[in-house]
Amino acid sequence: MRKNIVERRIMWGDLDSLGIVFYPRYYEWIDASGHLFFEAIGLNLGDLWSKRQILFGLAETSCSYRKPGRYHQKISITTHVDVLTDKTVTLKHLIHELPTGTLLLEGYEKRICLDVSDPDNFRAIDIPDDILAVLKDTMRGS
Amino acid sequence: MRKNIVERRIMWGDLDSLGIVFYPRYYEWIDASGHLFFEAIGLNLGDLWSKRQILFGLAETSCSYRKPGRYHQKISITTHVDVLTDKTVTLKHLIHELPTGTLLLEGYEKRICLDVSDPDNFRAIDIPDDILAVLKDTMRGS
Amino acid sequence: MRKNIVERRIMWGDLDSLGIVFYPRYYEWIDASGHLFFEAIGLNLGDLWSKRQILFGLAETSCSYRKPGRYHQKISITTHVDVLTDKTVTLKHLIHELPTGTLLLEGYEKRICLDVSDPDNFRAIDIPDDILAVLKDTMRGS
Amino acid sequence: MRKNIVERRIMWGDLDSLGIVFYPRYYEWIDASGHLFFEAIGLNLGDLWSKRQILFGLAETSCSYRKPGRYHQKISITTHVDVLTDKTVTLKHLIHELPTGTLLLEGYEKRICLDVSDPDNFRAIDIPDDILAVLKDTMRGS
Repeated sequence: MRKNIVERRIMWGDLDSLGIVFYPRYYEWIDASGHLFFEAIGLNLGDLWSKRQILFGLAETSCSYRKPGRYHQKISITTHVDVLTDKTVTLKHLIHELPTGTLLLEGYEKRICLDVSDPDNFRAIDIPDDILAVLKDTMRGS
Repeated sequence: MRKNIVERRIMWGDLDSLGIVFYPRYYEWIDASGHLFFEAIGLNLGDLWSKRQILFGLAETSCSYRKPGRYHQKISITTHVDVLTDKTVTLKHLIHELPTGTLLLEGYEKRICLDVSDPDNFRAIDIPDDILAVLKDTMRGS
Repeated sequence: MRKNIVERRIMWGDLDSLGIVFYPRYYEWIDASGHLFFEAIGLNLGDLWSKRQILFGLAETSCSYRKPGRYHQKISITTHVDVLTDKTVTLKHLIHELPTGTLLLEGYEKRICLDVSDPDNFRAIDIPDDILAVLKDTMRGS
Repeated sequence: MRKNIVERRIMWGDLDSLGIVFYPRYYEWIDASGHLFFEAIGLNLGDLWSKRQILFGLAETSCSYRKPGRYHQKISITTHVDVLTDKTVTLKHLIHELPTGTLLLEGYEKRICLDVSDPDNFRAIDIPDDILAVLKDTMRGS
């Protein structure tokens, strides 16, 4: 299975008053990691949009919080394709503390393939075959 | 059932490159609406924390996206208690476009009652009786 | 002098670990207030961009911090045109605590008029006469 | 002169509707780079705060924008001490596009040394001698 790993450090601006990560930040990192995952497998979302008018729009996102993230911790965000259907792809994201490997958070983004050639009216479509093949390929092996 | 409604306008800084709301923004608004809900029922989370060392920490959050939010739309965020257990309270948040009432998003925050008297080691506890009574009371009626 | 005033409340997600506002938030509010100011004087920036390919891009921004903003304070953001040249307009923003009126912050955004008809190469232009007249008009009186 | 350099990539969530960086993001990166600069010279701001009740609070921030940042660009943020007085330290931050080295932005943060032992009433103080010596040392050489 193809995974992409992004590392980052928890910064001052990521914290709330309790000194733990303000949870919308996690979604910002997950969103960015999703984009990097797509790019790592050769699917640049910016290109898909500008050249083919295709967008993987959000249908659903979710996070389960296991342990609070704290100032200056180093973390990794590991992303892989968890579920693939005709029209949707679900990315799973795991955030671990480094170097201990303690799981901080488990999240997913379910994205739906959209034709955005009409910017005011997005339309769900089947994932084109060439893109589907690339996504399927990431799920091979263990 | 007790509901709290917050209105706001979608601003330039809330948008992504496609001109639709960048989804972590929705979580910021939902989080803020959750705090306002607690305050509206007489539970100021800042006070609970500073005076009783109690925090309703996040266990899980989720959003389903129905329609993209766009520049300058007026929206309402409606919050109520959806599920209540000994240790957890789940707030449901609905975001509608105004004045049409079109549903843009459905989300929830499952919060767990924590004793944070030791700032480095939060501990799940039963929701104190007085607080539980207030939360239960919001679920009465239709 | 024409002013536009926006009120808001400082929320949990706006705070840093010290329990005071994380300063990039002020810039988000200032940016939003700038957009609302333009709209209040009949210049919708979204329309200027989509219909006339004109953008008031940022040349410079700055804030001086007088007192820290804290949880749940109600604040007002007051915006007016401070300086106007052939190509630039500088908006001044004052943030006061309510109801005391204590000044928390003084900031400005210097914006430059851009022709963005070529999205990859923005070009500074003179502010068109009709827009300049509207901006000048806001500076009349006291 | 001691400099600290942070590299990052411009992500989807950093952009506005025009496909260029939403400027409050720059301040988030500058703030984070400031914290990393302090840490690189042996002054961990979290420790200064928790162990010595000292904070370098913001007095003023500013950015001049030279060229818009765009999707997926790699950038560097270079930070150094520009001005040092008894009570204040001004960090200068330059953001360049990589690998071209084109300057995108020039900014600074003027920070003032605060005694925060009373959380409700911060008080400006002279920078303690040991800290001043460390900061001065970063300005030596070229």
